[in-house]
Amino acid sequence: MAAGWLFGKDARYVNDPEQHIVVLGGGFAGLTFCQSLRHSRARITLVDRTNHHLFQPLLYQVATAGLSAPEIAQPIRSILSDHEKVTVLLDEVRDIRLAERKVMLAGQTLEYDYLVIALGGATSYFGHPEWEQFAPGLKSLDDAMRIRRDVLLAFERAEMEADAERRRKLMTIAVVGGGPTGVELAGSFAELTRTVLKGDFRRINPSDSHVVLIENSPRLLGAFSEDLARSARDQLESLGVEVWTGCRVEEIREGEVKVSRNGSVETLAACNVIWAAGVGASPLTRGLGVETDRAGRIKVEPDLSLPGHADVFALGDLALVMDDNGKPVPGVSPAAIQMAQHTARTIRDELDRPHRAGRRPFKYWDKGSMATIGRSAAVAQVGKMEFSGLLAWLAWLFVHLVFLIGFRSKAAVLLHWIYSYCTYKRGARIVFGEETRPPDAGA
Amino acid sequence: MAAGWLFGKDARYVNDPEQHIVVLGGGFAGLTFCQSLRHSRARITLVDRTNHHLFQPLLYQVATAGLSAPEIAQPIRSILSDHEKVTVLLDEVRDIRLAERKVMLAGQTLEYDYLVIALGGATSYFGHPEWEQFAPGLKSLDDAMRIRRDVLLAFERAEMEADAERRRKLMTIAVVGGGPTGVELAGSFAELTRTVLKGDFRRINPSDSHVVLIENSPRLLGAFSEDLARSARDQLESLGVEVWTGCRVEEIREGEVKVSRNGSVETLAACNVIWAAGVGASPLTRGLGVETDRAGRIKVEPDLSLPGHADVFALGDLALVMDDNGKPVPGVSPAAIQMAQHTARTIRDELDRPHRAGRRPFKYWDKGSMATIGRSAAVAQVGKMEFSGLLAWLAWLFVHLVFLIGFRSKAAVLLHWIYSYCTYKRGARIVFGEETRPPDAGA
Repeated sequence: MAAGWLFGKDARYVNDPEQHIVVLGGGFAGLTFCQSLRHSRARITLVDRTNHHLFQPLLYQVATAGLSAPEIAQPIRSILSDHEKVTVLLDEVRDIRLAERKVMLAGQTLEYDYLVIALGGATSYFGHPEWEQFAPGLKSLDDAMRIRRDVLLAFERAEMEADAERRRKLMTIAVVGGGPTGVELAGSFAELTRTVLKGDFRRINPSDSHVVLIENSPRLLGAFSEDLARSARDQLESLGVEVWTGCRVEEIREGEVKVSRNGSVETLAACNVIWAAGVGASPLTRGLGVETDRAGRIKVEPDLSLPGHADVFALGDLALVMDDNGKPVPGVSPAAIQMAQHTARTIRDELDRPHRAGRRPFKYWDKGSMATIGRSAAVAQVGKMEFSGLLAWLAWLFVHLVFLIGFRSKAAVLLHWIYSYCTYKRGARIVFGEETRPPDAGA
Repeated sequence: MAAGWLFGKDARYVNDPEQHIVVLGGGFAGLTFCQSLRHSRARITLVDRTNHHLFQPLLYQVATAGLSAPEIAQPIRSILSDHEKVTVLLDEVRDIRLAERKVMLAGQTLEYDYLVIALGGATSYFGHPEWEQFAPGLKSLDDAMRIRRDVLLAFERAEMEADAERRRKLMTIAVVGGGPTGVELAGSFAELTRTVLKGDFRRINPSDSHVVLIENSPRLLGAFSEDLARSARDQLESLGVEVWTGCRVEEIREGEVKVSRNGSVETLAACNVIWAAGVGASPLTRGLGVETDRAGRIKVEPDLSLPGHADVFALGDLALVMDDNGKPVPGVSPAAIQMAQHTARTIRDELDRPHRAGRRPFKYWDKGSMATIGRSAAVAQVGKMEFSGLLAWLAWLFVHLVFLIGFRSKAAVLLHWIYSYCTYKRGARIVFGEETRPPDAGA
């Protein structure tokens, strides 16, 4: 529709033929939205505080030295290079003023006609923010690189440590949280220590290391069936992971985790503690003046817009919307992508036919869930069907490779995986940054 | 020869059948030495302050976002995994006490029978250490990652900068030093800005950026012939590099370089200044009490041992030894590798036949030199033969791929290169670390 034809309630279109859509966040939701909405009357500005889109489902591989950072990240600019109407800004969101239709960034202020909030989640410590410094979460490349560095350097220090108890502590990794991320991390750490590092040290034997997976509830993988959870546990244990279910974390301090276990409090000495237990929404949602749940997720309308703000949408991990069974849509990338596609359709329809009444509600199509445990070890649930072991792992590999399509490093990643899985070597065992100096080396 | 047979001057062999060889540095010299000396009576301890061996000739590719860090680095432990008599320590050398035959590390003290010093070089600012903070050198992965991050973030800031002059400064990269490293960096930056980043920005045009190569002497590539230097200059200029020869750097401050040029002093505003002009030996050489040259290189005996210390060898960039023409052997990786092989032979001979008098002098075999400028652009000199352009580039590619053999990521790197060269994309344009936050974003 050409500009200048509209009157009455749509009069602003006359003066502003292009609608400015501001998208906050370049994760799966924000990026998919930009890719899905190509419209002559939509000018898009995408804001992200990093320069890259992250293939989050494989982030645990970076943390465990299986993949290097560029293999799962790609510059947002490069992905959107041929979307001429999309401008990418590397900047940080400071404040969202819904009443003024403005977003305050660190460097500038943006006015919008439509706003898409897709800032994703943040690690949540359930009211214990002081644990963060001792137990990093896994949300960004920085997190992953920090975990990788700390774990690999702990083995270097163990090689030089004469005291047996301190050596044991250096060689112990605790993973808190038995959801998919915790399971994937624990399995991958076990493989790292049992196979990848094998033979590389002279004084210690990396196979003597301990990987402990701590979960509060009585079983792993709450979102999966009991059978699959049991299978995941068996597969983890055969890799050498110690699975502590029904264990409540009471306190985390430097190099130790206190847990309630079988009625008593036990202290686990672990040089590296990784937090994979809690995910909340970006803290910016709390300042919007709209209703949020305990995790900070925005209770959106069925069309994914904010109550009372039809021009503002919340997508991905920070949106709380129900599926057909009345259960919350999970915070996984397929859900984020589907929400983004739905919202792009909604806005496109309005740009084409501004007088059309009503918007279609979002419907989530659950394609199933899977968690990988190690080489040829995984669990998968698709509708009523359940798989585990090699078959589930092949399904996981297939889905992730298909998913990586459009991601440029796909061929290189595939080759890398084949290589790694054949040779039990890991390519990304490089640590750098100031903190790689030996701990006693001073300045 | 079995232990326990020797008397007189070799009596210490009786009590210490294994000789302890301490190797300082896991670069080409240190690593090759460990790989070359397999002997039942040689127990080796290799000390490096990083956990990886670096394929230094390709480090400029990491700095210019062409390759990712793990593609040119590999854990030293992993390379030496099946050398059972080699122990690898991640530690830092603090002091070398030749008289006591001891090396003081940050974490422990090592006693040696033989010592191999292969600590490599360090960036030298010719008496201006204060320039370092404004003009990083390129010796380590940290350096390369810092340069990559600063250059890519400068373009992000330029995209948001309204002022034309500040934008020009953000989009200017100055490379100081017209040797092979400077030429490779300048060519690679020009390619990055003209082709790789092309089309990714909406407000700026990366092709408007300036890459300035500053060299003190009247021509580039002093080690090559005049013809090749001229060819290199032509190839750089056709990529868009501004070559300033005969320009003396007078001062470097934040974001600017002052140069004497055509008799007057000129100020170049450049957000990024890279120092590729001076390389000196590791500062540890100065405390040894042996003669060094101006760059700190140790004047070794013809067998590469230290004068007065037949049990101590200096290899690689920190050794000053003459070739057959009486010219110093250059600080390049083939020279480091040849020195390491020679020293391994020397020590093996002594372990086998302790009474043998005299050692063979080191002879350098110059295989030629080459510098790459960009895709299909390079110069190469092999004996009396000279190449430039595509042929030199193919030779460069071939030599580096052959050289990478034994390096695990070889196949992946090759694939990556083919991909990058076909698509003009660069895979490693990811920046992370605390400093990736937008400059105005505060804490």
